[in-house]
Amino acid sequence: MASEFDLIDRYFKRPAPAGMLGVGDDCALFGVPPGMRVATSTDLLIEGRHFFPDVDPRALGHKALAVNVSDLAAMGARPIGCLLGLALPTVEPAWLAAFSEGFHALAEASACPLIGGDTTGSTLGIAISVTVFGAVAPDQALRRDGARPGDQVWVSGALGAADIAYRLLSGQMPADAGLLAATRGALEWPQPRDALGQALAGVANAAIDISDGLLQDLGHVLKASGVGAELRFADLPAAPALRGVDPARLRHALLGGGDVYELCFTAAPERADAVRAAAARAGVAVTAIGRITAAAGLAVLGPDGRPETDLPRGFDHFSTP
Amino acid sequence: MASEFDLIDRYFKRPAPAGMLGVGDDCALFGVPPGMRVATSTDLLIEGRHFFPDVDPRALGHKALAVNVSDLAAMGARPIGCLLGLALPTVEPAWLAAFSEGFHALAEASACPLIGGDTTGSTLGIAISVTVFGAVAPDQALRRDGARPGDQVWVSGALGAADIAYRLLSGQMPADAGLLAATRGALEWPQPRDALGQALAGVANAAIDISDGLLQDLGHVLKASGVGAELRFADLPAAPALRGVDPARLRHALLGGGDVYELCFTAAPERADAVRAAAARAGVAVTAIGRITAAAGLAVLGPDGRPETDLPRGFDHFSTP
Repeated sequence: MASEFDLIDRYFKRPAPAGMLGVGDDCALFGVPPGMRVATSTDLLIEGRHFFPDVDPRALGHKALAVNVSDLAAMGARPIGCLLGLALPTVEPAWLAAFSEGFHALAEASACPLIGGDTTGSTLGIAISVTVFGAVAPDQALRRDGARPGDQVWVSGALGAADIAYRLLSGQMPADAGLLAATRGALEWPQPRDALGQALAGVANAAIDISDGLLQDLGHVLKASGVGAELRFADLPAAPALRGVDPARLRHALLGGGDVYELCFTAAPERADAVRAAAARAGVAVTAIGRITAAAGLAVLGPDGRPETDLPRGFDHFSTP
Repeated sequence: MASEFDLIDRYFKRPAPAGMLGVGDDCALFGVPPGMRVATSTDLLIEGRHFFPDVDPRALGHKALAVNVSDLAAMGARPIGCLLGLALPTVEPAWLAAFSEGFHALAEASACPLIGGDTTGSTLGIAISVTVFGAVAPDQALRRDGARPGDQVWVSGALGAADIAYRLLSGQMPADAGLLAATRGALEWPQPRDALGQALAGVANAAIDISDGLLQDLGHVLKASGVGAELRFADLPAAPALRGVDPARLRHALLGGGDVYELCFTAAPERADAVRAAAARAGVAVTAIGRITAAAGLAVLGPDGRPETDLPRGFDHFSTP
């Protein structure tokens, strides 16, 4: 059986970018431009909790990095590099080859090279930890506490597809091959909005990426900023594939569905053109879905302009699903 | 049941150090002094693989951070902060309180505050990922590829106790309460040599921390530096508690025993006084145990000055134990 070190070399070691020390020492080394801050985030993905055991390993490698690059995007930070921790019950070269291929492809696409990590056996299932680093000017970072009353609330891309795919795959919705085919990519191959996040630095006032559901994640921004918000349900950008999905199911997917990895952000109304220009530069659609209020609370306005009741809770990793 | 966010707040959130953004946003933010590099390392600890399920959670919190601070030490870097990923099958406040206490106590002692992380449920057992950041001047970093022929090889502290404790606890050695009491601290409460590592920056030529066994870890330095080494077995600093242990068992523990977290480093012979001064400043014993050779290979010289045979292999996480 190949040793841990051979495995690291074969699948994960790449030449370190100029000025960095990469895989193979006690630490990786990197620099940041003068005056910039290092932005960093980490996620831990557990088999059976965050992914199905039979998931395509190429998609898993992609997603493990994507959810972290998404955190850099939500901060407005430019990626520098990443670390990968990988605990595996068995060593399967084909699995490792596919996983590393998916990982490295996104690392290249988002200029976030793998510069270090840790591989180990596991008596449990597969566990994956990814840590990312980026650079951001301290006065341009898109913090959660920057939302101001009067700000418009925006989301990028479309909502709901990942949630529907999850419910189809987990048997919570009856099998529907066509709907699964149309939504599975959103769940397994989320596209982090790194270009948009960087373009919004200095334009938006606050941002978060939607991992646990729109209402729950926007709720964190509201709490941190000491404000409230009103969303217009009719303006939420549903994924086109969801046409035909039962309205109650759709409503839950849009408001409470997790694993979205779109950005939810707020900006002053007079920056609306700058927001649209940033989105155009990044090649991502953005939609204004409501406004920030001085009064606390998060309301979703129905077609009659009145707040809806029975809002879904977001996904909480510690709650019973 | 308390939500994930309440838990984070209750046990892990601390006021962020000045100039940093800590727990509670998409990313943590920190700066580094001009001209310094960020040193970073990550480790993934899996229940049943890296710790026993019934380990004292306070010790586990300590060790999860200690093994990472040890990597900063082996690079000569000054700690800046850390991230914690924690996957738990169940939420037990007493466990979390003890774990976080052990973690924070070492974070304070080594000036490596917790600035972000991720908590999640787990369908498997407990998984812990820790990522650390430090600052080091690029020309003073203790890299693995800096060993030069003629360098002295040094180790800090004493060797072997953690390996013996592991074998007692796992039943590979017959029960011996006295020996366990004398060695268990080395396994469960390793003391990272951060003060020594920083004091050796600019003094030593190369360093590594001993996690997988002296021979295996020194082997990485030799391979990266393109050199060999000769160690004198009689000079290896055995932990005093190991007096009386069977000689073959002791030999294996000294040369191949993992989980040591002492530093193994090389320095030019004319820097021997500077090495001793650095060790005195850090309050850590250091011992010269051999020398770097131009010829490849790692020899352990016995009492007669001839190379010993049958050297133990180091611990490899992917090999059968």
